Amino acid sequence: MPRQGRKPAARRRTREEDAQMALKAVLLDLGGVVYQGGDALPGAVEAISRLREAGLALRFLTNTTRKPKRQVLEKLRGLGVEAETEELFTPAMAARARLEREGLGAHLLAKAALEEDFEGLLADNGNGAGGALVVADAGDDFTFEALNEAFRVLMDDGEAPFLALAKNRRFMDDDGRPSMDAGAFVAALEYASEREAEVLGKPAEGFFRAALESIGAEPAEAAMVGDDAEADVGGAMAAGLTGVLVRTGKYRDGDEDSLEPRPDRVADDLAAAVDWLLKQM
Amino acid sequence: MPRQGRKPAARRRTREEDAQMALKAVLLDLGGVVYQGGDALPGAVEAISRLREAGLALRFLTNTTRKPKRQVLEKLRGLGVEAETEELFTPAMAARARLEREGLGAHLLAKAALEEDFEGLLADNGNGAGGALVVADAGDDFTFEALNEAFRVLMDDGEAPFLALAKNRRFMDDDGRPSMDAGAFVAALEYASEREAEVLGKPAEGFFRAALESIGAEPAEAAMVGDDAEADVGGAMAAGLTGVLVRTGKYRDGDEDSLEPRPDRVADDLAAAVDWLLKQM
Repeated sequence: MPRQGRKPAARRRTREEDAQMALKAVLLDLGGVVYQGGDALPGAVEAISRLREAGLALRFLTNTTRKPKRQVLEKLRGLGVEAETEELFTPAMAARARLEREGLGAHLLAKAALEEDFEGLLADNGNGAGGALVVADAGDDFTFEALNEAFRVLMDDGEAPFLALAKNRRFMDDDGRPSMDAGAFVAALEYASEREAEVLGKPAEGFFRAALESIGAEPAEAAMVGDDAEADVGGAMAAGLTGVLVRTGKYRDGDEDSLEPRPDRVADDLAAAVDWLLKQM
Repeated sequence: MPRQGRKPAARRRTREEDAQMALKAVLLDLGGVVYQGGDALPGAVEAISRLREAGLALRFLTNTTRKPKRQVLEKLRGLGVEAETEELFTPAMAARARLEREGLGAHLLAKAALEEDFEGLLADNGNGAGGALVVADAGDDFTFEALNEAFRVLMDDGEAPFLALAKNRRFMDDDGRPSMDAGAFVAALEYASEREAEVLGKPAEGFFRAALESIGAEPAEAAMVGDDAEADVGGAMAAGLTGVLVRTGKYRDGDEDSLEPRPDRVADDLAAAVDWLLKQM
């Protein structure tokens, strides 16, 4: 892959030759890449099968924080994509791994549906003893009371980890207008507490790294395919992966121009991205 | 007063002599200086009478954004302080003056009680035509829906003024614990919209200036007395006034050490502050 270390050689290896040596794993974003709303995007399910048939390890990396992993897997299977639990990476799973590693409970500010991903870590009142604050997209459950309760967790224990599953500013809502995303409420908590949240989802490097570690692959042996130039492609490339931007989902004309360095590849959709990736093997 | 311009003279004027020439006006914070909760602070009402008897112009500058000016005046009168409408300066009044000057309506994010200060400027749905966004302390009315509606005003018209009546991070709540203040929700709107709010209350220089203009006094001819080191005293001193910090209300030991330059005077309470001010005349 392009960013792989090169040994001195009589003849410089071409980019394609490097790629042929290395591609072991492909990481895929879900919303806007594999599906849009309730439907699979055209050619996406078949494209995923081709990656599997080529012997590539797959991981699905989504920043969704409204659904527990069980529902995400059910949705994939409903669309005809057989995905195993260990192939899915969500920010909630990253937070859970972090809490278990440090032996911490959690106070969760999220939609109730997400609670199952933190089973056993939440006290009855949602406030784990000696816990971290975990902020997900609570949507219209971002009430003053819920935010203020979370704020007091930060104020009561200045050492408690302050984990944000994502920090998106806004999203295109069902009515076709922009709405405030979870990042705005993370910013509110940061301002009030004068503390800084640690962001766990894409584009955090650790999120990509955890997916690669589960495979045993190096960044130079992996590609990420996504529709979000900054979170998916920019984040992956900063972590040393090959970045492929697709022109589906939230992609808008010229998104690739906002990235420095530019994406390794811009493809019309997942099927076209897979065509290109398989040629690199 | 200390920060007054000095002309070359055969002998340097002393600080006291400058003050004697200049003191025309005293600006007073209310909560924590004149009253605490529902009661006047000891000696405060009598101290205000002494300022009036000395011929000083008075202005009351409060950052409260939960009460309309009518209720603030009623509270003062109930405590025995005769105050005229034109002596009171609230951030809502500053916002109204600004809107009227620019011929703008307003979308108000606030407690319902504050609406009367914007009478005639709010459309029936609270969203004035061609309007500005005005954010006050809405307390537990900071719901996702109300915030998102305000956010869309900012997104629909990138030129609409974005006015924050205050930007405090947190306050000591009735239960003795810190709670999120309006500034946190201003920060959320700023983060989501990638726009910056204009803050109208203390410590904004324009707020002090408007009070002085209503008197016809220069900053060097005025003193501000407050219990908030940053908003009251730091803000007033940055605007060129003399700053007096009182050890009542939200004052905590050492607050004066956080200011650079330090307050011109730290006094035990309003009565002691007035003792000192009257000696400067």
